[in-house]
Amino acid sequence: MLTNRQTIRIEWGDCDPAGIVYFPRYVEYFDRCTRALFERAGINKRDMLKTYAIAGIPVVDMRAEFKIPSRYGDDVVVESCVSKWGNSSFVVRHRLMRGDATAVECYETRVWVVQLSEDPVKYEGRPIPNEVKEKFAAVAEVGPGK
Amino acid sequence: MLTNRQTIRIEWGDCDPAGIVYFPRYVEYFDRCTRALFERAGINKRDMLKTYAIAGIPVVDMRAEFKIPSRYGDDVVVESCVSKWGNSSFVVRHRLMRGDATAVECYETRVWVVQLSEDPVKYEGRPIPNEVKEKFAAVAEVGPGK
Amino acid sequence: MLTNRQTIRIEWGDCDPAGIVYFPRYVEYFDRCTRALFERAGINKRDMLKTYAIAGIPVVDMRAEFKIPSRYGDDVVVESCVSKWGNSSFVVRHRLMRGDATAVECYETRVWVVQLSEDPVKYEGRPIPNEVKEKFAAVAEVGPGK
Amino acid sequence: MLTNRQTIRIEWGDCDPAGIVYFPRYVEYFDRCTRALFERAGINKRDMLKTYAIAGIPVVDMRAEFKIPSRYGDDVVVESCVSKWGNSSFVVRHRLMRGDATAVECYETRVWVVQLSEDPVKYEGRPIPNEVKEKFAAVAEVGPGK
Repeated sequence: MLTNRQTIRIEWGDCDPAGIVYFPRYVEYFDRCTRALFERAGINKRDMLKTYAIAGIPVVDMRAEFKIPSRYGDDVVVESCVSKWGNSSFVVRHRLMRGDATAVECYETRVWVVQLSEDPVKYEGRPIPNEVKEKFAAVAEVGPGK
Repeated sequence: MLTNRQTIRIEWGDCDPAGIVYFPRYVEYFDRCTRALFERAGINKRDMLKTYAIAGIPVVDMRAEFKIPSRYGDDVVVESCVSKWGNSSFVVRHRLMRGDATAVECYETRVWVVQLSEDPVKYEGRPIPNEVKEKFAAVAEVGPGK
Repeated sequence: MLTNRQTIRIEWGDCDPAGIVYFPRYVEYFDRCTRALFERAGINKRDMLKTYAIAGIPVVDMRAEFKIPSRYGDDVVVESCVSKWGNSSFVVRHRLMRGDATAVECYETRVWVVQLSEDPVKYEGRPIPNEVKEKFAAVAEVGPGK
Repeated sequence: MLTNRQTIRIEWGDCDPAGIVYFPRYVEYFDRCTRALFERAGINKRDMLKTYAIAGIPVVDMRAEFKIPSRYGDDVVVESCVSKWGNSSFVVRHRLMRGDATAVECYETRVWVVQLSEDPVKYEGRPIPNEVKEKFAAVAEVGPGK
């Protein structure tokens, strides 16, 4: 399974008065890691939206467990992979590691959508193209992200 | 059950290039709504940390479902309540409403913790004082937040 | 001069490990206050972009002085006004007050722009419609924002 | 003059509904770049706060010019240096480059402070140790950050 390893420096501004990462920032980290995972599969998000004429890959469901806190100045590694492909949806699993320990674990369910209307914003799922799934199968298994 | 209703204006800077709320911002909204829920129960977070000598009430588990997107300029209402009290943990349920429809639903499991060490940061749960739980039982059922 | 007074609660997540507002958050507060100032003049930003077919009112120059820090849990008031109208640009002045003291002062120069191209994004200034300027002149002098 | 060059990927969540960087995010980028500049001089911020028993190096004055917008997916380079050393304060200059063009330019004035009281938070400047200034003089002129 294609896995991307992304090193993240915990910044001063990502931490709260308790000196640890303010938990919504983890959710931002993981969104960035999903983008990096796609890039590692050879898919640039901006190009992808154009090529396939989709509005995006919004998260419709998220579960996260925060097990070990991280402090500003720490370097952590996030391992990301697609743990499940559906027809129009897929699940991205992120593990934020401190050494060998999983500090945070998160599952994002995302949908491949087109936009039906603008006000209110209405999306509808579409089948994920096979060539997208194949790109995740075609590259080497584990490696550092960008 | 004590429920706080918080009106939130979706700001330009909370939205992404698709024109809808960038989903980690919802997680920030809900953290703010938990603070407001406690205030509605008569508990100021800053005072609470001092009075009970705790480090905080960090989120250890979160589940969220994003059903309907919101756009910048929208006014939405978040209804928040403690859906379950444990010994040292509790669950806060948030429902972000667009009119009568639930647009986002989120469950935060939080723990009442003291800090054991600073580097690495190590927390340990402590029993939630009864007077805290009682304050949630003592006030009127539903009302607007601040 | 039309002045909007906006009360802002300093949230836990807006503060850094020193326990005070992380300074880029002030810049977000002020952007929100500019939006609220326009609304007080009777102008909704989303409608404005449509009505006048502009891309926005981006900040091209900003100056800020951070004099007194604020802590999480504090309530502060931001007083905002347009301190200068040009042909296609204008200056918004924000004063974040702690009681009678100015804690932060900020000047944003913004331009009324249309978009010329998408990649690269290229904007060009346009004359600010008189009716926009007149709306700022027509309403009562000082009042609370939303 | 020691200059740090930091490559920054513009993330989806850093951009607004106009598809360009939401300007307060630049201010966050630059704070991160100041941290990276110190690191390039061999100074880790977390260690520095401990070693010199200071509360931080807060920004007391900021000026920024936003000349050319950037879009999500862009890679930009920020060149940062200390453009002026005072007794207890210093100025950091950041230039965000798109190719050869300066897209954003920012000057942060920061102060080397200790904390005098906690509520209200009161800081006071202290002389910047010579060894800190010397570290900036001792390393090679220009290079990539981390």
